Amino acid sequence: MPVPLKTIIAVIIRSWKSAIWRAADTDETASETTMGIVRPRTMPGVQEFLPEDQVVFQRMLDTIRQSYERFGFLPVETPVMEFLEVLLTKSGGETEKQVYFAQSTGSRNQGKEPELGLRFDLTVPLARYVAEHQNKLRFPFRRYQMQRVYRGERVQRGRYREFYQCDIDIIDRDTLSLEFDAEIPVVLDHTFRSLDVGEFTIHLNNRNLLRGLLDAFGVSDERQQTLVLREIDKLDKKGQEAVVESLGGSEIGLAKDVAEGLLQRIQGEGSSAQVLETVANGVSSELLEKGLQELSDVVSAIHDHGVSENRIRVNPSIARGLDYYTGTVYETTLNDHPGLGSVCSGGRYENLAAQYTDSLLPGVGISIGASRLFTGLRESGWGGQRATTVQVLVTQMSEELRPQARRVASLVREAGLNAEVFPRVAKIAKQMKYADKSGIPLVVIVGDDEAAQGTAVLKNMVSGNQESVPVDQLSALARDWLIAKQGE
Amino acid sequence: MPVPLKTIIAVIIRSWKSAIWRAADTDETASETTMGIVRPRTMPGVQEFLPEDQVVFQRMLDTIRQSYERFGFLPVETPVMEFLEVLLTKSGGETEKQVYFAQSTGSRNQGKEPELGLRFDLTVPLARYVAEHQNKLRFPFRRYQMQRVYRGERVQRGRYREFYQCDIDIIDRDTLSLEFDAEIPVVLDHTFRSLDVGEFTIHLNNRNLLRGLLDAFGVSDERQQTLVLREIDKLDKKGQEAVVESLGGSEIGLAKDVAEGLLQRIQGEGSSAQVLETVANGVSSELLEKGLQELSDVVSAIHDHGVSENRIRVNPSIARGLDYYTGTVYETTLNDHPGLGSVCSGGRYENLAAQYTDSLLPGVGISIGASRLFTGLRESGWGGQRATTVQVLVTQMSEELRPQARRVASLVREAGLNAEVFPRVAKIAKQMKYADKSGIPLVVIVGDDEAAQGTAVLKNMVSGNQESVPVDQLSALARDWLIAKQGE
Repeated sequence: MPVPLKTIIAVIIRSWKSAIWRAADTDETASETTMGIVRPRTMPGVQEFLPEDQVVFQRMLDTIRQSYERFGFLPVETPVMEFLEVLLTKSGGETEKQVYFAQSTGSRNQGKEPELGLRFDLTVPLARYVAEHQNKLRFPFRRYQMQRVYRGERVQRGRYREFYQCDIDIIDRDTLSLEFDAEIPVVLDHTFRSLDVGEFTIHLNNRNLLRGLLDAFGVSDERQQTLVLREIDKLDKKGQEAVVESLGGSEIGLAKDVAEGLLQRIQGEGSSAQVLETVANGVSSELLEKGLQELSDVVSAIHDHGVSENRIRVNPSIARGLDYYTGTVYETTLNDHPGLGSVCSGGRYENLAAQYTDSLLPGVGISIGASRLFTGLRESGWGGQRATTVQVLVTQMSEELRPQARRVASLVREAGLNAEVFPRVAKIAKQMKYADKSGIPLVVIVGDDEAAQGTAVLKNMVSGNQESVPVDQLSALARDWLIAKQGE
Repeated sequence: MPVPLKTIIAVIIRSWKSAIWRAADTDETASETTMGIVRPRTMPGVQEFLPEDQVVFQRMLDTIRQSYERFGFLPVETPVMEFLEVLLTKSGGETEKQVYFAQSTGSRNQGKEPELGLRFDLTVPLARYVAEHQNKLRFPFRRYQMQRVYRGERVQRGRYREFYQCDIDIIDRDTLSLEFDAEIPVVLDHTFRSLDVGEFTIHLNNRNLLRGLLDAFGVSDERQQTLVLREIDKLDKKGQEAVVESLGGSEIGLAKDVAEGLLQRIQGEGSSAQVLETVANGVSSELLEKGLQELSDVVSAIHDHGVSENRIRVNPSIARGLDYYTGTVYETTLNDHPGLGSVCSGGRYENLAAQYTDSLLPGVGISIGASRLFTGLRESGWGGQRATTVQVLVTQMSEELRPQARRVASLVREAGLNAEVFPRVAKIAKQMKYADKSGIPLVVIVGDDEAAQGTAVLKNMVSGNQESVPVDQLSALARDWLIAKQGE
């Protein structure tokens, strides 16, 4: 689009004015004005949305939060910065190598080393929080936390340096009932149904089942078992053949028939009972029995809660890479978006906060990676186009009618609807176009006739219908039309 | 309270078990286990709430957000880290000296200097955002932003290193109508009414009025005027006498009678008209006339919007310390909490983003300091005691009745209420006590008789009433009782 001459002239005049102003002011604000224009930009690897996407993202976070609260989870927020000593108690992890250090100007000027880092997940802050406040919390402690986390990742598709996690965990003291292993998928079922993302599958497994199966195969070294589990976790990405090869390689050293037998057993098809039968067919170990029993109990309790059978899948090939899971593990996939992989994962751990307290704090929880989920869904059009929070646009027909427009907007707002007065007097067509482009569903018109009669015209931008009503009935009609629209 | 012997023994056994586990695992996780217990704690100067406070704080943020959306403001969130080059374009400010630097492990290992800093307000990110995305935004651009900001302050009461700001701004291109100066207080009026904080006063002034008054007194040097305004801004804290002295000191150099006349004129009492008359009584300047006119127009428009007269106060002694305000300025005080000072301040600025773009972007906006406001209100008991998000506790009477309890909880949730199943089978008195202590208003009891009859007993923990109803009518009754409770 060619730039109109008027605009070019305006820009020249503006720069010239600005230059004069700057010259006149040089003494006072030298450092400010000599720096010139800095290109406005953000660091790579972060999500920053335009308002029409932010509206949808915010609605998504609200839905998740509402769903977590539906099950009585309590909100927690923790500071973005933690002491490095607290944050990095477990060395050697990949995530710990990606930490962002933080330091105040004062500390830096004194030549100190950074003492602070940004949280890289919500689990470490939870452990610190529960250990710190344990005497003031009620157990079992059910908390949700929805905040951004930070990782100095290499920038690549689907990997962010700043992203939202939406976590729930249930922590108890000393022992934690299997009840809660069953409740987590019930919360997820409610959450993903509320998000309206189409059909989804919650995959369930139990690490005792996998370790017990290895015991049954005579592979009972704990370190070797851990390596096997990590390899199984890559089955989706690497495929059967590559995993069999790794399992038989020098590091892990499984016999080929053991590796193949293992993979065959954990990839059974059919009902939950059939899948479990395939796993344990003709083999046995103490831990395997424990895993089978726990998993069956959990699945049975989930069904008691009323979760639809076809959304729950016992999947013994789910291993979860993280070593601290000790029992039930979860993954969730969206049937219409297989490419997204698991959008919500987690499991049970025997001790949340050994690094901060002697208290034994077993827990179970999951995390929804909201940023990645949003991007994946949004690419397929999820959430619709909604450029606005406004439900009712009040038009401005003339300077004289402005007080009337303001009063009508106030009435609509007091009735609980979001209203905006068009920013200036303009042709009605222009104001209608603004509503249309912004996605505002309703427009109110108060012209001279309406002002004289104490009425207003309400126009439905979707159906094109319009109706003239007394001003005091306007909000009720607007609400009816908005409800009708939602119902479509 | 003495520690029971049982607990002491449990701790000893646990430590011993834990020591064995650690010894067995030493090879694999040496660095993890040799570090021992790290004391769980956060940096000083940050707010971290227990759940019963976080529930109330979250409700406060929701109310503010809902109120901003009521006026059609669009949500924006920006990354916590900005490039230092972008963040620190204005050098010399106090806030800039308090910036937190951030750096990834990778960048640090390469011996680089930090390139990133944490945002210290929401205005700089807004300026960067609007400049960066200006071709994709619709103007006038109405945005709200509610995020945490970071300042390396010395730790003292009421000063935080991490705190929430809740901002609204309206930005236009080239010119911005005075309409919007009038709309901001209307939004504040709605917001503070919604927050239910008692009576409040929105103070309005116009910097042109103050500068114009100085012109009329023959004090027309812009730098001198700025120093005078900064001094007037301290009137509340330092008092009349100290300010007169500073104004007459060597740096500013006003004659004593000018200083006194100035302070007398800007502290008039009475109606808006009377206050403005006191300011301009017998003196005149071009800028003073402009200031008077703008302020009158804004006040008149605010009243058109239906804002109660007694909440709006023309207060010519409001100067705002920040130099970039160029017209209307706002402060808000809570009548019952004078010690909190202004809990929401802002004003009009002629150009938002000169450091990032040649576009002229005038705007007007305010910021609610939510963290400080919350602390101040909470100390006086605001928000009540609510340790829970749960509305309905479903009791567990026996193992056999557990499936029934789960189904009832699911029913209640599907009807849109927040429900928790008591975590285990226990005496009814204990379960009641849990509900009472947690602030859960309703309890559902399904015993053997009820299960046989398909009924449930709903107990109101506030009134003590209880009623037996068929299970399918339970949610409706619960909802009625909750609405009745809100109405109290």
